[in-house]
Amino acid sequence: MKERKLGRGVAMVGAGMSTFGAFAGISTRDLLADAYRDMIATVDRGFDPNEIDGLYIGNFSSELFEGQGHTAPIMTEWLGLAHRPATRVENACASGGTALRQGVMAIASGLYDVVLVGGIEKMSDLPIERATDALATAGDKLFEIPSGFTFPAFYATMASAYLDRYGLGAEVLRAVAVKNHENGALNPKAHFGQRIADVMASKKAAAAKKGKPVPQWKDIEEFFADDRANPMIAWPLRLFDCSPVSDGAACVLLVREDLALQFTDTPIRIIGTGQASDGALHGRPDITTVTSARIAAGEAYAMAHVTPEEISLAEVHDCFTIAEIVATEDIGFFEAGKGGVAAIDGVTSRLGARPVNTSGGLKSKGHPVGASGVAQAVEIWKQLRQEAGPRGIGANARLGLTHNVGGTGQTSVVHIFERR
Amino acid sequence: MKERKLGRGVAMVGAGMSTFGAFAGISTRDLLADAYRDMIATVDRGFDPNEIDGLYIGNFSSELFEGQGHTAPIMTEWLGLAHRPATRVENACASGGTALRQGVMAIASGLYDVVLVGGIEKMSDLPIERATDALATAGDKLFEIPSGFTFPAFYATMASAYLDRYGLGAEVLRAVAVKNHENGALNPKAHFGQRIADVMASKKAAAAKKGKPVPQWKDIEEFFADDRANPMIAWPLRLFDCSPVSDGAACVLLVREDLALQFTDTPIRIIGTGQASDGALHGRPDITTVTSARIAAGEAYAMAHVTPEEISLAEVHDCFTIAEIVATEDIGFFEAGKGGVAAIDGVTSRLGARPVNTSGGLKSKGHPVGASGVAQAVEIWKQLRQEAGPRGIGANARLGLTHNVGGTGQTSVVHIFERR
Repeated sequence: MKERKLGRGVAMVGAGMSTFGAFAGISTRDLLADAYRDMIATVDRGFDPNEIDGLYIGNFSSELFEGQGHTAPIMTEWLGLAHRPATRVENACASGGTALRQGVMAIASGLYDVVLVGGIEKMSDLPIERATDALATAGDKLFEIPSGFTFPAFYATMASAYLDRYGLGAEVLRAVAVKNHENGALNPKAHFGQRIADVMASKKAAAAKKGKPVPQWKDIEEFFADDRANPMIAWPLRLFDCSPVSDGAACVLLVREDLALQFTDTPIRIIGTGQASDGALHGRPDITTVTSARIAAGEAYAMAHVTPEEISLAEVHDCFTIAEIVATEDIGFFEAGKGGVAAIDGVTSRLGARPVNTSGGLKSKGHPVGASGVAQAVEIWKQLRQEAGPRGIGANARLGLTHNVGGTGQTSVVHIFERR
Repeated sequence: MKERKLGRGVAMVGAGMSTFGAFAGISTRDLLADAYRDMIATVDRGFDPNEIDGLYIGNFSSELFEGQGHTAPIMTEWLGLAHRPATRVENACASGGTALRQGVMAIASGLYDVVLVGGIEKMSDLPIERATDALATAGDKLFEIPSGFTFPAFYATMASAYLDRYGLGAEVLRAVAVKNHENGALNPKAHFGQRIADVMASKKAAAAKKGKPVPQWKDIEEFFADDRANPMIAWPLRLFDCSPVSDGAACVLLVREDLALQFTDTPIRIIGTGQASDGALHGRPDITTVTSARIAAGEAYAMAHVTPEEISLAEVHDCFTIAEIVATEDIGFFEAGKGGVAAIDGVTSRLGARPVNTSGGLKSKGHPVGASGVAQAVEIWKQLRQEAGPRGIGANARLGLTHNVGGTGQTSVVHIFERR
């Protein structure tokens, strides 16, 4: 592997996000303004917006979701950053992570000193079936879409191959969902921030209130197996294996590393970045792993000069529960076939040895697709600065990793962050 | 203005494009493959595709035009560049120029040594009114589109303001159209590569052949004023003031400057890059100039340490004839109000003092929107290397400039190129 090195160091000095959810009548520009205000409040020593040299906006498809293209310059006007160069970056659900990488490269290039990286998506205005169609444009129109595949079907294919190869059942998928909802319940910005046990209790209460038969689930297993409460979407993936269709935005402020202390005492350095591509799912020799994620992670680790064992926490792309399991293997946390068991054993839980998706992940926090890769960096910011409140993993957290995937792995982007 | 400097120098060592036109059944991936093959043939000493570190793909809206998102990684597979990081960049009709800038920055950042920059658009599959709707998503959905504006209307507004302010008539617009068709007639890859006089002759011959009354235009003026042959689109812009809806692709190969001589004896260095944004047309104090273009050009000149007077030729964004006139003023070739007269006087013609759009421009060469910004660089490559054939401007050409605009100037990107 070619050793890659940034021309100048880059640090994150602010990070914020809108609440994720379904917000009728709120546009991406308003969502990004929310995230921007939230970010401003995190810059310890404040800053003058005039210092921002440029913007990168990760967005999958405002054209299809809200009929608006050319979103990046609109944001300069909306945020009061007139005339600043602004560029929209699109790599499907990896748009946010890719925008982050462009921000890092822009500073390393010498052109910019201060960059605002935003991620946005406004998905809930479309009916769910049209939203699924819009998302399907991230698949291959020539080969995949005509054969009837949608994204739940792609990931179901990966899940069934994975479970078959390693002799596992849906219990590993369920463990991821339960864990991420536990974490999301501690994240006030989560779209579905409820523990599964609380979801069950709500459903029982609602049935009782309506005078309908109250479901008698003994435990979470029974709830998950209930075809009414948790319908099959694409075998073996049920509703609670899928991330929601969300609206939301996130942003981070990046600066040249040697300027960071002008903004904050506790900058978070970005010490590794990796990106890789792959062809569509049907052409891959092995669909129980994502090759582009392995390459991207390898590059990021090599640049950062750290090993997977040293990473304190990871935010990975759990668009479906199976995706988190595969991701934790692709980033080197676990051997192939061991990611699911790690979730069952609590290794990836918030207080486990290798915390994964302390934010609640895409599954519980929500998945406004272009925003997700940037929101991952927001969680790392909070955790490494010990500002994650009740979901904090503790003061020893020093290295964080984000893993953002587009499509089924046609794009993967990995970043490594460090608090010194 | 902040002085901006690239961390490492960047050179263009290959450049190619597909033919521009309307090609039913040909997808963007095939168009880019055509451009890639064309580019490969221009790299004097050849190269190993394995050396390509990454791709940037400028594309306005494959989602809307061909139902395909996430186009960048698809291109890696299609071109045989498996796993290479690939990023789609979208800034409406400035997507190509923005992708070029990202390629420059990626090399300057230290991460990549060799980058393929592509621009693509496949527009002709949609009926013209739906293509116009798709293009309209580059306007502001909140303020502009609901009031009925489309892009011909935006530029018509700018044109009427310009003509009124400077006391000019449609003759200045016509001069641009005539000139660009003269140039396009010498470009075998142009979509509408016919001189206007030849268009008139063809129409006469076609009418005669069908036994219809043969039009009796005395001169080009009469042809332009004929509401049947050259209908009014949005006053004062007629059909021949508008660039066509085209399919096409272009690409260039960029390398770290100190590697350039491994690829060619005659690299073309990129010595200046500038980008700026603006709000929508309705909020601007003056619509007879494009502020973002002036800022972008100013940055590019400052970085390149050259003045407008030193530029040998420019490819500017003539999506409408008025746009070229304003562009030549915004890049400092002429004072405000003098760009139209310069076209009439032949100053901007191929053999004039300040050649503009020797390729035929968007007007005659065609305007596959995401490809246009990259295709401009292809023309500069040919001209500075004296490989432009019958449309060559001569051996003294040493500095070239490209000017690529998105929307009505919400984005402008300017690059300056040098042959040493």
